[in-house]
Amino acid sequence: MTISLYSVSVPVFERMLRNLLAIIGKAEANAAERKIKPEVLAASRLAPDMYPLAFQVQSATDRAKFFVARVTGREAPSWADNEQTLEELKARIDKALAYLAGVEATDLDGHENKPVSLKVRGEDVQLPALDYLLHNVMPNFYFHVTTAYDILRHNGVPLGKRDFIG
Amino acid sequence: MTISLYSVSVPVFERMLRNLLAIIGKAEANAAERKIKPEVLAASRLAPDMYPLAFQVQSATDRAKFFVARVTGREAPSWADNEQTLEELKARIDKALAYLAGVEATDLDGHENKPVSLKVRGEDVQLPALDYLLHNVMPNFYFHVTTAYDILRHNGVPLGKRDFIG
Repeated sequence: MTISLYSVSVPVFERMLRNLLAIIGKAEANAAERKIKPEVLAASRLAPDMYPLAFQVQSATDRAKFFVARVTGREAPSWADNEQTLEELKARIDKALAYLAGVEATDLDGHENKPVSLKVRGEDVQLPALDYLLHNVMPNFYFHVTTAYDILRHNGVPLGKRDFIG
Repeated sequence: MTISLYSVSVPVFERMLRNLLAIIGKAEANAAERKIKPEVLAASRLAPDMYPLAFQVQSATDRAKFFVARVTGREAPSWADNEQTLEELKARIDKALAYLAGVEATDLDGHENKPVSLKVRGEDVQLPALDYLLHNVMPNFYFHVTTAYDILRHNGVPLGKRDFIG
């Protein structure tokens, strides 16, 4: 495998989102078994002032989408953040995977120093694409995927690290 | 920034471990304020069958260390997994940061296809170094750093996403 902006980004997003899709699928089956209403886990949190599962999935998919859109300069598709059930969250991940499947290596490779404009804590900043990926997109992406997993584990869904790593 | 095996690994570990160090420092101050014994948060978990905070910190530092050791072919320093307080966990992170500070870009760059031998779920596997980094080391590293943060947030330590991202 050649090291390139594509190889260190899109395949990572894809792998982790496929794992997250399977994790949410297991949560759905477990919720049905335990007769938990479809919206309960989607609204579960680790602390009252942390965001719920639905937000974690929305943010993870958004981080991947915006990375591609900002580096390629293409407009990002707009996804309403209105998912309320695990089934809707699976559909959200499917949309992200379909979007990522349309990205070619040549769309990203060679752009690692391209300046990317974004807002960080309300301020306009410009970062080279690789810095943006490594120090903003990836930590946020992994934060949201892991926290989604942690919320489900905390709520008794039978999952293991293998589900997370894939 | 040039995209290279070093640039996509060691600076990421360093940044996230420095953030984790600051997070554990905040937890320590908060525990002192709330008169929580030093070993309580280190032993806290999100679920009875999940690992506690101390393990998350040990694993995050180990993942970074073993990546460097396996790709360079140097022996990894041995760290006893015996930390029981937040102060000891900070010392563990300091050791990892000191180890990473001794790694030069030339130690890693160009080795992205070097076969790395490791055990995955009890089986001996060989992966090219870049695959090992992107699809094994990084997901595990971020999993443990995020779960450490999540354990502390779940236990009421006042932290925000900014502490995680740095």
